[in-house]
Amino acid sequence: MTNKINITLSTTKKEKPASNQLEFGRVFTDHMFVMDYSSSKGWYDPRIVPYEPITLSPSSMVFHYGQTVFEGLKAYRTKDDKVLLFRPDKNFQRLNLSNDRLCIPQIDEEFLIDALKQLVSIDKDWIPTAEGTSLYIRPFIIPTEYYLGVAPSKFYRFMIILSPVGSYYKEGIHPVKIFVENQYIRAVEGGTGKAKTGGNYASSLKAQDEAEKRGYSQVLWLDGVEKKYIEEVGSMNIFFKINGEIVTPSLNGSILEGVTRNSILQILNHWGVPVSERRLSMEEVYQAYKDGLLEEAFGSGTAAVISPIGEFFYKEEKMLINNGETGELSKKLYDTLTGIQTGVYEDVFNWVVEVK
Amino acid sequence: MTNKINITLSTTKKEKPASNQLEFGRVFTDHMFVMDYSSSKGWYDPRIVPYEPITLSPSSMVFHYGQTVFEGLKAYRTKDDKVLLFRPDKNFQRLNLSNDRLCIPQIDEEFLIDALKQLVSIDKDWIPTAEGTSLYIRPFIIPTEYYLGVAPSKFYRFMIILSPVGSYYKEGIHPVKIFVENQYIRAVEGGTGKAKTGGNYASSLKAQDEAEKRGYSQVLWLDGVEKKYIEEVGSMNIFFKINGEIVTPSLNGSILEGVTRNSILQILNHWGVPVSERRLSMEEVYQAYKDGLLEEAFGSGTAAVISPIGEFFYKEEKMLINNGETGELSKKLYDTLTGIQTGVYEDVFNWVVEVK
Ligand SMILES: Cc1ncc(COP(=O)(O)O)c(C=O)c1O
Ligand SMILES: Cc1ncc(COP(=O)(O)O)c(C=O)c1O
Repeated sequence: MTNKINITLSTTKKEKPASNQLEFGRVFTDHMFVMDYSSSKGWYDPRIVPYEPITLSPSSMVFHYGQTVFEGLKAYRTKDDKVLLFRPDKNFQRLNLSNDRLCIPQIDEEFLIDALKQLVSIDKDWIPTAEGTSLYIRPFIIPTEYYLGVAPSKFYRFMIILSPVGSYYKEGIHPVKIFVENQYIRAVEGGTGKAKTGGNYASSLKAQDEAEKRGYSQVLWLDGVEKKYIEEVGSMNIFFKINGEIVTPSLNGSILEGVTRNSILQILNHWGVPVSERRLSMEEVYQAYKDGLLEEAFGSGTAAVISPIGEFFYKEEKMLINNGETGELSKKLYDTLTGIQTGVYEDVFNWVVEVK
Repeated sequence: MTNKINITLSTTKKEKPASNQLEFGRVFTDHMFVMDYSSSKGWYDPRIVPYEPITLSPSSMVFHYGQTVFEGLKAYRTKDDKVLLFRPDKNFQRLNLSNDRLCIPQIDEEFLIDALKQLVSIDKDWIPTAEGTSLYIRPFIIPTEYYLGVAPSKFYRFMIILSPVGSYYKEGIHPVKIFVENQYIRAVEGGTGKAKTGGNYASSLKAQDEAEKRGYSQVLWLDGVEKKYIEEVGSMNIFFKINGEIVTPSLNGSILEGVTRNSILQILNHWGVPVSERRLSMEEVYQAYKDGLLEEAFGSGTAAVISPIGEFFYKEEKMLINNGETGELSKKLYDTLTGIQTGVYEDVFNWVVEVK
């Protein structure tokens, strides 16, 4: 693969949304990164071009067999106007892991970091400045062969698009309510749970929809075999503080390994706070709640960073956690992570990558 | 929804492939059916237009979250030049079942049959005439909202495209070799197994790929919970004849209900041949094989109609069935089904629908 990225700048500039009117994932910047793959050429023609539509035949595989993967990360603007990426190496590593599961060819991770830096640098004026805002980065791959056979595509397109996004918490960090799902299943070992592929999200929509109708913002998935063990939340991993112990489900083959989850484990380790990655049943959590030992629960993910959980709905019962308020540990982790991401705290882990 | 289908005919006609050079799903006819959906209008603007590319923003949901469904059926040309569809009502019924699981709005099934008839009638010269050939019909739905949030799309496009396809068996019906999958999982109860959605096929690619490398044409999926019970083959349901009894796995929530499977059950019933739909473990099949009681096995699906199975690879052992030859029952069912589909046999079940 050639490392030379061809750049075509947009001749017109779109209007940027006001910082206080930012939504998630609706507005995109002036440029995008694109690269194609064919069995004979490998990944080729990496280029930065004006943001523009994709045109494909109706028989393009992407419309039929869901052989897609994606990633999600953010760029932040610091007070002194630097642009920082948070652990992009982890996202591209996970992209290749997803690629492997979906029979999509591997991509050079170093090259992708370089391509991302160039793209973000070109559109850096799009990074909003207000507290809590950022530039959401969406790398994704679609199969582009025109063929209705069920087989790995022989052609792909890799793209990165950028979207300025608002603060997840409009009025400061606050707890969410979670529905413990007892009917639908997200993933099972041997399936695609640990890959970031479209099908996992498509299959989650119905449960999510039903939870929302009952007033819950996300679902907590249990394992697909026994419907007993805790896996993860819609688009977050999950942590509990039970009687002083911090617990998160271990990576069992059906959970997505979050970059935020991984970062939290390292931070806790650095603080000398013991944390255990293990199998954890919802019954155990429920029992701890009954015994007054369930101190905190929170989700972790790129979008919200830390999402304190104020209530679970489980077996027709509302489990109120920490009086429905943000716990101490949740708050401290949120401040630490966002502090590092925005250059306010010292980056002792060497996580942030500056875009020059 | 208005039932008036707007028709725009193509001004140029593409060249049709020779009957003996037909592949599967690579060449498409001159026209396609398209219809859009928005929350405010419902399904609207049904139209038949020249076959042409789709243009969508890179942020279109279809490129990210796999909220797609599809169907597959065929039109046949009879000796006396009639055009027949095989049970299109069953396919559109299943489409709505898939829609329900994927949070896609329902569509009027009667209207779809009418739309399909009009489309096939316009492109009827594309239906090949040689023995075993047909016109493959692919209805599908994609989400078209430009939004990166994980939520059901507010906009969709429904399309039907048509592809002339060759005979599945170039040298007459012959048995396939099947790999019994012991690592990967296709679906599990509570997931999307009984829906025809892209993600199910994306997740199957890796197992399929590994089976092919070992010389097997498809995999046999076992259940996702105990990895013991037989579910289905790549894109076929499966039947066994064990010591005179015909057995097929019951619809357990993770198997796709094939139209061919359903038709076979009715035919066997009509013949007075007892058949049992029940839970069936691979161990039971293996034991029957060891005892010399496994008489036949075959897959059933729109593409091949009946696919006799000559060999299973299970637990590092090759299980040869019926000396690797096509069984009597497989052959009889193949002749009956294709006979009805092509108007050679009397349609006692009222299955075929003529396109005038
Ligand atoms: C299913 C799922 N789990 C967990 C996460 C959290 O991962 P990360 O921390 O890398 O954003 C996400 C979000 O990306 C997700 O989609
Ligand atoms: C997973 C799966 N199972 C079974 C079938 C057989 O269904 P049908 O007989 O309707 O073609 C198909 C093919 O459509 C399929 O994709």
